[in-house]
Amino acid sequence: MSVTTPQGFVASGVAAGLKSTGKTDLALVQNLGPSFAAAAVFTSNRAKANPILWSQQAISDGIVSAIILNSGGANCYTGAYGFQTTHATAEAVAEGLGVSAGDVLVCSTGLIGYGGEEFRANLLGAVPASIAALSDNGGLDAAHAIMTTDSVPKTAVVDRGSWSLGGMAKGAGMLAPGLATMLVVITTDALLGSSELDDALRAATRVTFDRLDSDGCMSTNDQVSLLASGASGVTPGIEEFTAAVTELCASLAEQLQADAEGASHNIAIETIHAANEDDAVEVGRSVARNNLFKAAVFGNDPNWGRVLAAVGTTQAEFDPYDIDVTINGVRVCASGEPDRPSTDVDLTPRDVHVLIDLKVGSAAATILTNDLTHDYVHENSAYSS
Amino acid sequence: MSVTTPQGFVASGVAAGLKSTGKTDLALVQNLGPSFAAAAVFTSNRAKANPILWSQQAISDGIVSAIILNSGGANCYTGAYGFQTTHATAEAVAEGLGVSAGDVLVCSTGLIGYGGEEFRANLLGAVPASIAALSDNGGLDAAHAIMTTDSVPKTAVVDRGSWSLGGMAKGAGMLAPGLATMLVVITTDALLGSSELDDALRAATRVTFDRLDSDGCMSTNDQVSLLASGASGVTPGIEEFTAAVTELCASLAEQLQADAEGASHNIAIETIHAANEDDAVEVGRSVARNNLFKAAVFGNDPNWGRVLAAVGTTQAEFDPYDIDVTINGVRVCASGEPDRPSTDVDLTPRDVHVLIDLKVGSAAATILTNDLTHDYVHENSAYSS
Repeated sequence: MSVTTPQGFVASGVAAGLKSTGKTDLALVQNLGPSFAAAAVFTSNRAKANPILWSQQAISDGIVSAIILNSGGANCYTGAYGFQTTHATAEAVAEGLGVSAGDVLVCSTGLIGYGGEEFRANLLGAVPASIAALSDNGGLDAAHAIMTTDSVPKTAVVDRGSWSLGGMAKGAGMLAPGLATMLVVITTDALLGSSELDDALRAATRVTFDRLDSDGCMSTNDQVSLLASGASGVTPGIEEFTAAVTELCASLAEQLQADAEGASHNIAIETIHAANEDDAVEVGRSVARNNLFKAAVFGNDPNWGRVLAAVGTTQAEFDPYDIDVTINGVRVCASGEPDRPSTDVDLTPRDVHVLIDLKVGSAAATILTNDLTHDYVHENSAYSS
Repeated sequence: MSVTTPQGFVASGVAAGLKSTGKTDLALVQNLGPSFAAAAVFTSNRAKANPILWSQQAISDGIVSAIILNSGGANCYTGAYGFQTTHATAEAVAEGLGVSAGDVLVCSTGLIGYGGEEFRANLLGAVPASIAALSDNGGLDAAHAIMTTDSVPKTAVVDRGSWSLGGMAKGAGMLAPGLATMLVVITTDALLGSSELDDALRAATRVTFDRLDSDGCMSTNDQVSLLASGASGVTPGIEEFTAAVTELCASLAEQLQADAEGASHNIAIETIHAANEDDAVEVGRSVARNNLFKAAVFGNDPNWGRVLAAVGTTQAEFDPYDIDVTINGVRVCASGEPDRPSTDVDLTPRDVHVLIDLKVGSAAATILTNDLTHDYVHENSAYSS
């Protein structure tokens, strides 16, 4: 049920004709209250799509009544016309729901540069249908409507008895920090103010979506929104709430990794005994972005030399000749020298664990990534054509 | 003739049994003087191979008598044993040539982690043969012996009449700044001191090899050496000499790009009207490292949205909504909006030119890269297995 699991939310997913396949491509989630507190985080890319520019303004007062999301067009680099389309979309939703346009978030995903007259006509034309279809069990329909190259919808629920969280996500490529190419909507019936929501959301995304780096490419359209209806009447402790949001985001991040375009391995790069958490993240990211290592994993080759060559490019604190590398439980490099033979490593399972021991401190972090495959090249060379 | 074109140099290439194919894998270049001034630049990777650690010491006095280079094993992350192998190699060359071991540079290339007993025995065993084969027309043999996955040897000559430059290079993957996975030896019969050579070499590599970024992966074994015999008796002006070294390095860099593993396009990313040169380089590099854009070029898809999404991740000075992008002469994006249709762009030629106009200043830089292809994934997933 995803975003409609918590009390106080309705959702829908309809076909606006944006996808050439005719599949559903427009999702709407409405918060019925009694509270309308919200928070959102956005791509850190300076090239931001029009819906991002709009939503950053709309969220500034911490109040959101509804969020509308389309696939089939990113409405990015479409100029003033594209921004007007986003504005008109929010106005249409607001008018239909009887709320303020400034309380409507807009998200788009699809091809950059697509967002002209046909896009606007299809999008605005389908808003009434998306409103008419709103239902308290529409969460899965909404999750389907935001899919692009995703092969499955991504949803998650965290149930704490007296209150709950629901979430949906889309994203299958361009997954990189400062978020991924993804749209995420999280709902809760907990009763919390927008600043508590903001704190919890930033704490959760920092250790989940921000550590998912499938292909090193940062999107122009990323947005993760958290809407709280307060319908449960329960105000959980901020730590408890943050833990629940983190759990939900981690589940969605793993689903995104597992469905990354063309991937044949899910790789978790765990860096331990780092001087601090930033070092652990930097080291993990450099390995996650190393095409040679990622291609080796695709070929089931536990090439630890490529791991160390990537680690060596970072500014993290370590002795380059005193690092251990363990792949799927086999320590193949000890203190910068060959240890157990690479042939002992079994890389045939989809899940791969790379453990990098920097031996200088007590901090740790795990970065999630994927291998570099023929299918990745194929899917991304054919995306827009 | 490459490195033996300038007067005062002999070279050889022999088979030491390091390559399983039995092809030549050991190159030696000797400077016969009368001058022995030299300079070298090394990988900026903190994970440095044993030959790098040795050569950094050996070059510190600016004097080099000979340089020995092997393919078939990187001798990186092979511990103290590997360093002793490098040391013993320099000693063997020095003894055979009657020079000091501290004046012998050593370079290795091949698989990281390979450099054990068999490697040492084969390498040292072949040093006498490499000395016996030294000849004043051995330049091409040497260029062949340093090839790994290169499909062709890379050589270049710049002839200035009274003096000349010769060079050879190897490298076909792991090509990224702070140099590439490459070994380069440049010789000259000009009469110059080591500090002039160092200035000229750094100036040349900064705008040539350092702007070649085939796959974003930085090697552990890169070394570019410049040896001057002074045999012409001519001392060119430093500007004239630097221009000649730059011309030679640019030729070798283009040959490396053209032979990059699995590539089907050579992409030149030219950034103009940047606030400063660093900005132009940062913008070009971010596009050169964007897998989505590189996969699109492989598919002959002029996906300018992916160019701007990559540019947006940089800290360079620009207005993200006032950038022009021109691909192979067709301006597909003007001031951040779609301009001429992408279908007007012909990406079937191997050479691709991407022009990014930041519209803020007068600086420019060009980064050379390649597309991301099925063959790249294939070659790099099968490299060590």
